[in-house]
Amino acid sequence: MSTTTDPNLTSWIESANEAGCDFPIQNLPFGLFSRTGVDIRCIGIAIGDQVLDCRALVETGRLEGHCSSEACQALGSHRLNEFLALGRSEWRAVRERVSALLRSDMPDLKDDPNHREACLVPQSEVVLHLPMEIGDYTDFYASLHHATNVGSMFRPDNPLLPNWKNLPVGYHGRASSVVVSGTPLTRPCGQTVSADGDETSFGPVRLLDYELEVTFVVGPGNQMGRRIPIEDAREHLFGVMLMNDWSARDVQKWEYQPLGPFNAKNFCTTLSPWIVTLDALEPFMVDGPPRSEGDPSNLDYLTWADDFGVDLNLTVEIASAGMREQGMAPTLVSRGNYADMYWTMSQMLAHHTSTGCPMNPGDIFASGTVSGDAEDSRGCLLERTWRGQNPITLGDGTERKFLQDGDEVLITGWCEREGAVRIGFGECSGVVMPAREQVTA
Amino acid sequence: MSTTTDPNLTSWIESANEAGCDFPIQNLPFGLFSRTGVDIRCIGIAIGDQVLDCRALVETGRLEGHCSSEACQALGSHRLNEFLALGRSEWRAVRERVSALLRSDMPDLKDDPNHREACLVPQSEVVLHLPMEIGDYTDFYASLHHATNVGSMFRPDNPLLPNWKNLPVGYHGRASSVVVSGTPLTRPCGQTVSADGDETSFGPVRLLDYELEVTFVVGPGNQMGRRIPIEDAREHLFGVMLMNDWSARDVQKWEYQPLGPFNAKNFCTTLSPWIVTLDALEPFMVDGPPRSEGDPSNLDYLTWADDFGVDLNLTVEIASAGMREQGMAPTLVSRGNYADMYWTMSQMLAHHTSTGCPMNPGDIFASGTVSGDAEDSRGCLLERTWRGQNPITLGDGTERKFLQDGDEVLITGWCEREGAVRIGFGECSGVVMPAREQVTA
Repeated sequence: MSTTTDPNLTSWIESANEAGCDFPIQNLPFGLFSRTGVDIRCIGIAIGDQVLDCRALVETGRLEGHCSSEACQALGSHRLNEFLALGRSEWRAVRERVSALLRSDMPDLKDDPNHREACLVPQSEVVLHLPMEIGDYTDFYASLHHATNVGSMFRPDNPLLPNWKNLPVGYHGRASSVVVSGTPLTRPCGQTVSADGDETSFGPVRLLDYELEVTFVVGPGNQMGRRIPIEDAREHLFGVMLMNDWSARDVQKWEYQPLGPFNAKNFCTTLSPWIVTLDALEPFMVDGPPRSEGDPSNLDYLTWADDFGVDLNLTVEIASAGMREQGMAPTLVSRGNYADMYWTMSQMLAHHTSTGCPMNPGDIFASGTVSGDAEDSRGCLLERTWRGQNPITLGDGTERKFLQDGDEVLITGWCEREGAVRIGFGECSGVVMPAREQVTA
Repeated sequence: MSTTTDPNLTSWIESANEAGCDFPIQNLPFGLFSRTGVDIRCIGIAIGDQVLDCRALVETGRLEGHCSSEACQALGSHRLNEFLALGRSEWRAVRERVSALLRSDMPDLKDDPNHREACLVPQSEVVLHLPMEIGDYTDFYASLHHATNVGSMFRPDNPLLPNWKNLPVGYHGRASSVVVSGTPLTRPCGQTVSADGDETSFGPVRLLDYELEVTFVVGPGNQMGRRIPIEDAREHLFGVMLMNDWSARDVQKWEYQPLGPFNAKNFCTTLSPWIVTLDALEPFMVDGPPRSEGDPSNLDYLTWADDFGVDLNLTVEIASAGMREQGMAPTLVSRGNYADMYWTMSQMLAHHTSTGCPMNPGDIFASGTVSGDAEDSRGCLLERTWRGQNPITLGDGTERKFLQDGDEVLITGWCEREGAVRIGFGECSGVVMPAREQVTA
C-alpha cells in the first residue's frame, strides 16, 4: 500500500481526522476554487473542512526539491489542464509531498502562521468551479442492469443488443453544458410526439430524469492516429468524479433513432467539484469486471490481467422545494455501487482510443447510469419508477414519477473498506428551475 | 444587394479578378495562417492568390474609424474565436472596410509598398490551420436522399424513421479529431463482426468511406438555458466550410445501436481552411427547404418565413497514390448541391439550442452527407457504390468499393449564379495512410 493511503496517517488539520469526513489526509482530491468575492481561480486540494491553495503552497517554496518546476508552474494555473497533462509520476510526486506536509508529525507548515494562512482557506469561504476545461465529453453505457432495464422499455423485443457484451457502447456528449455541482438546471423545452405517434409538439419537457453516473478525467492522452493500450490506462487516468447526466425521456424516446440521444441530453450535465485521484482509490480497487458463464470473452485490446473496478458506494437523494423549506432531510431514492459495472474505465479508454481518436488533458468520459440488480439500486427514475408505473414517495408525502420543478437531486459517493480510511467524493447536486419559455406549438 | 457582393467590383490584386478564381473580392473568406517556417498564427483573409494578414492590417491603422477597437483587437488574436464572439455587425464592418481597401479604385494600400508587403502574403508561402478552436462539433443528418439511402441499407424494413421529417436528426461528434485540409488520415482500427454475427475481431477497418458535408461556424451563441430562435439564426451564423466526415462503415454497422455512431466517426473529420461568410453567400441564397405534398408542416420553432438554403455546388474526387505519381487528374465520383437539403442551417441551429444547450463561438455543426436524387450525386461511397455492389472505376482503371490506402479524397465547393461573381471554398482534402498497427484479434 502506498504511504499516502496508510490508514495510520493523521493530519494536523483536525477536521480531516473526524470520522465520516469526506476529505481525510488519505484522499487529497483536486479542485478549482476562488475565494468568496475574489475573481481568481486557483487549484486547490480538499483537506478536512479546508482547501489547500496550491499556488500559495508553491510560493512558500515547500514543493521545491520534491516536485518538478513544471508541476509547480502547472499548479499555479487557473485550471487543472496543465497539471493533468504532466502525467502520473508528476501527479504522484505532488500527492506525496502534500501528504507529507499535512501529516500530524510534520508541523512545519502548521507552525508558520503566515504561510499557513496563505495556504489554507475554509471550504465555507470558497466558490468551487469545474476543475478543468473539458474539450470533449463522452458517455458510455457500461451497466448491464441499466442497459437491460432501459432496453426492455425502449425495445421490448430486443433489450440487450448483440454488440453490448462485446464492446463498451458509448456516444459523444455535449461538453459545453457540463457544469459544476450547485448550478441550477433550467427545465428544457423539446419536441415530443403524442402516444399514438400522430402529433408532435414543442414545450417544456415532462419526463425529466437524473442519471447517476461516475466520470473519469483524462491526463496526458494520445496523439491522433495513436491509441492508448489497455495496459497503459493508469498512466492516462487522473481521477474520478460523480456525475448527474440529466435526461429528458420524452424527447429521448422520439429523437434517439437512428443516431442516438441528442437534445434529450445536451442541456445539462452536473459534476461534483472534486476529482478523487486513482492513487487515493487504490485501497478500494477490486478485481476486473464481473462476468457470467456464457459471456463472450474480451478481444485482446480489451483484456488486461491487472484490470480493476472500484468499490465505490453511490446514493441519490431528492428534496422537493417544500422539503427544503421545512428543513426536511432529502429522501434516499437509489443506492448503487460502481463495482457492479460490466465494463471498466480502462476498457472504455482503450476502446475509445482504439481508432486513434485523440484524448486531451481534461477530457472526460462517463460510465453511463450505474444500476445494480435490486430495485433500489436503479440509477435513474425511468428505471426506478419503471417508466412512471411505480412512483416513489418523497419525505413530504408527494409522489414522483419524474422530476418536478423545485426538486433538488443530490448524488453522493464514498469508499470504505476494512483496513482503509473512508474517503468521500463530496456532493453533486442541482435544483430543477421552471422552463424559461412556456412555448407550445 | 450588399455593396461587398456587387459583381462590378474588382480588386487591385489582379489574381482576384481572374475567371474561376475561388477568392475574388466578393468572397473574402476568413482563415488562420502562419508564414512558412514561422510559428505564429495570424487571422487572414483570402484574396486572389494572396492572404491578407489581418493583424498587420490593423497595425497600419487602416481599420480605425471603420471598425471597433474590439474588432481590431480580436483580429490580432492567434485564433478566430474572439472575432466570432463579436457578432454580425462587427463582422460586417470589417468586411466592408476590407472590401473597400482592396478595390481597384482604392489604391491607398496598394501604393504604400511597406504596408502592402506587411499585409499581403502569397498563399504559396503560408501554412493554413483550423481557423478556430472548436469547443463542440455536432453532425446532423439533413439530406432526405442520404437518410433514405443509408436507412434502406441498415434498416431495409424501416429506412426513414417517423421522426426524420419532424425534426433535424443530429448527434454529437468528436471535436478533438477535427483537422484542417491536407492533414493525412491514418486508417483506423476497430472492432467488427463477421457476416453471420458470430465472431468479432479487431484490426484495420476495411470499409473506409468519406462523407461529403457542409459545416456551419457559430458566432456569439447562447447562454445555457436560453435558446436561439430561428429568426435570430443569422446573427449567430458566421459562415460555411466544406467537410469530409471520414467513416468506418464496418465499425458503424456493428456499434451504432442503440446510441448512434461513435468509433466509426471519431478518428478524423477534415475541414476546408477558409470560412466563407454568410455575407458573401447572400447572392446565392435560395428559398427555404424543399417540401413535398404530404410532408408534415414544421412546428413554430422550426418555421421562419425568411429561411433560406444556399445554392452551393459540391464535388468529390478521388486520386489513388498511383494516379498522383503519374500526374493524372483525380476522378470525379460525386457531385451534389447543398440546396437539396431538407433541413436548413437555421432550423438545425434553432433545434439544437431549443433545449437551452449552449453554443459557443467557434462551435460547428454540420449538415450530414449531402446527397441528391441522382446516382452520381450520392455523397459517400456507401451510397455511391451501394454498399460495394457497384464499384466505381478510377482514372487508373482500378475499382473502388471503399477507400484504399494511398487514396486522396478532394472535396471542392463553389457558388455561381447569373448576375453574381463566382466564389469558391478552396479545397478539403486528405490522404489515407496505412493503419499504424496491424493488430488482429
